[in-house]
Amino acid sequence: MMERFICKGFRAAGVAAGIKTRSAMDLGLIVSDEPAAVAGVFTRNKVQAAPVQLCRQRISTGRCQAVIVNSGNANCAAGEAGMAAARAMTTAAADGLGIAEQLVLVASTGVIGRPLPVAAVEAAMGGLTRALRPDGFGDLARAIMTTDTEPKLSWRTGDIDGRPFSIVVVAKGAGMIRPDMATLLLFACTDAEIPSGSLQEMLQRSTDVSLNRITIDGDTSTNDTALLLANGLSGAVVRSDLHRQMFQSLLDDIFMELARWLVRDGEGVTKVVEIGVRGAESHADARRIADAIAHSPLVKTAFFGEDANWGRILGAAGRAGVPLDPERVDLYFDQIQMVKGGAGRGDRIEAEASKVLKLPEFSVTIDLNLGQGEASLLTCDFSVDYVRINADYRT
Amino acid sequence: MMERFICKGFRAAGVAAGIKTRSAMDLGLIVSDEPAAVAGVFTRNKVQAAPVQLCRQRISTGRCQAVIVNSGNANCAAGEAGMAAARAMTTAAADGLGIAEQLVLVASTGVIGRPLPVAAVEAAMGGLTRALRPDGFGDLARAIMTTDTEPKLSWRTGDIDGRPFSIVVVAKGAGMIRPDMATLLLFACTDAEIPSGSLQEMLQRSTDVSLNRITIDGDTSTNDTALLLANGLSGAVVRSDLHRQMFQSLLDDIFMELARWLVRDGEGVTKVVEIGVRGAESHADARRIADAIAHSPLVKTAFFGEDANWGRILGAAGRAGVPLDPERVDLYFDQIQMVKGGAGRGDRIEAEASKVLKLPEFSVTIDLNLGQGEASLLTCDFSVDYVRINADYRT
Repeated sequence: MMERFICKGFRAAGVAAGIKTRSAMDLGLIVSDEPAAVAGVFTRNKVQAAPVQLCRQRISTGRCQAVIVNSGNANCAAGEAGMAAARAMTTAAADGLGIAEQLVLVASTGVIGRPLPVAAVEAAMGGLTRALRPDGFGDLARAIMTTDTEPKLSWRTGDIDGRPFSIVVVAKGAGMIRPDMATLLLFACTDAEIPSGSLQEMLQRSTDVSLNRITIDGDTSTNDTALLLANGLSGAVVRSDLHRQMFQSLLDDIFMELARWLVRDGEGVTKVVEIGVRGAESHADARRIADAIAHSPLVKTAFFGEDANWGRILGAAGRAGVPLDPERVDLYFDQIQMVKGGAGRGDRIEAEASKVLKLPEFSVTIDLNLGQGEASLLTCDFSVDYVRINADYRT
Repeated sequence: MMERFICKGFRAAGVAAGIKTRSAMDLGLIVSDEPAAVAGVFTRNKVQAAPVQLCRQRISTGRCQAVIVNSGNANCAAGEAGMAAARAMTTAAADGLGIAEQLVLVASTGVIGRPLPVAAVEAAMGGLTRALRPDGFGDLARAIMTTDTEPKLSWRTGDIDGRPFSIVVVAKGAGMIRPDMATLLLFACTDAEIPSGSLQEMLQRSTDVSLNRITIDGDTSTNDTALLLANGLSGAVVRSDLHRQMFQSLLDDIFMELARWLVRDGEGVTKVVEIGVRGAESHADARRIADAIAHSPLVKTAFFGEDANWGRILGAAGRAGVPLDPERVDLYFDQIQMVKGGAGRGDRIEAEASKVLKLPEFSVTIDLNLGQGEASLLTCDFSVDYVRINADYRT
């Protein structure tokens, strides 16, 4: 499948550098033939890993030619050595590629608080640059995986005034995901030319409709980084509002595909559930209720148990701290109305709802019947395997 | 052990009425020989069970002579039938005891959204009133259990001007517990006489230092109820500020004992962990950080895995949304300082910290070194059994 797309002027690679204890790909590189315009969205956690701090500094120039990224070590909370290690990664990449260090961004993911083995990164750089290929994004997607079970890569193509362009995106997720942040790591490359004024706005918008609407466990990473690089080498230029809308819609679409994939492949996930809230007094109220439901351990364990336990969903909604009249609440599993005016509709309907719970993906919709506010979030169940994976993560 | 205390004029009982599917005690009763002064603290969830609504109405008189309580069914989200069922429970108890219905309070716990089998309660009332005994609080404690593995009962004695008095408390917890609420169900009886103006304040204060400082899964119940009854039949009268302080301190102490017990016996709990935060800019900031850490699934699964994963604790602290300078943060497991100035102190110290994690109870203390704000919360780990218990709860 890697042969079906090309993103002009971009090459990528992934290798095993020995950062992870098990022998697996853990070092990746993206490079553009020419410096590209770049935009970034980062974690809002107050504890930010050294690579995030370095990226924030360098991205202010708006230009980037390469991104070096490792898994297996977050390079976070490592003191002054952490920033030195993040810089050393970009120096090694710049030297290996023969480009300016200021044009290299860096990202890391993995265990927090352990020193990053810089020597391993440096030793692997020769092999990594030699492995760079236009269809190397699949290996890059593999190299950034932590507890993901699948590499995540997707692309879209379009054309502007007869000139074809493409967007390719790789991402990793699995845990520590919460909707008010970007996801862990996501790198988007396009060979379209985008005015630098629009790039950040477009990335933010696509992030808001996708990555900022998913949750796995409500925790947030110290390393969340989403980057969008546009090198313009296809010759397709986003000039008009129409072009912008078309490009945005492609970008939204691919981001949403990745976001859904991140949830589906979340740690221990067996169910993907869209939580919809409508009829709230405001959109913000609706979002707070969706948030309370989507993060409730009791709701999420009931999903895991395939239990149409609407009482827990009402209970979670009730603690969101927003206006709610229990006697007006309706609740649906997919199209099955289980609750009407705050009360259950009986065993026969519950038996139908129970069938919905057996599906791998379904929706829960709660209607407060108070106003026009609405929101939706994509969440997942909380399984025995989630606990196992996270209890044993560092061992 | 039930023989060692007496709370004058109070009797209690518990029987199996057939509300739970398995044959177990599920109906309890407390009665005072004379109407007692009463105070109550209830759930702040917007979705409130019918018995909570009824209690809120009746408690406004400040007088109560009996409390009828069932487990196995929360009598919540059952529509109009729910309020009728709650009333019917108090009618049955009032008739059985020959007292005024307005003097009877009611509480329920269990599955939300199923009709309460009122006929079963009525049929069991004769046996329940016959079973009333001064030492019947142990059976009462059993009758209110849901997923608790132990009945929870404790008492204290004191004297005022040579007159002995006692306080007896029963409680149930196990899940759906979060610090900004009272716990699920707690009933405290004392034969001291307390001026009605002080009673509510004393109950609120003891709740704040105990039940409002524990968390199991961050969910909150629609049925949380804590009641304090004082019938004055010991002849000990709380008159002066000194009496009040002495009584408050006993009440705080017994509430804290029960709160710790609720966490220790929480669903699937293998670790009880005190989260301490100090050096924040304000107490409120400290509390928000303690809250974020105490509810983080990643932190709690690491506790379950006995993993001294301080990176996850820093990550949770960082998303609390309050001022925090990562480079000033210190972190301790019990007395072992694992993090100094935001960085780990190496493998040798981590090996020592790992020993702490093997204990059934320990503390995590985080010092922001910014100001004088401090807070603490009691939390627990998140285990495979928590998920199993809650995935299978209704089956």
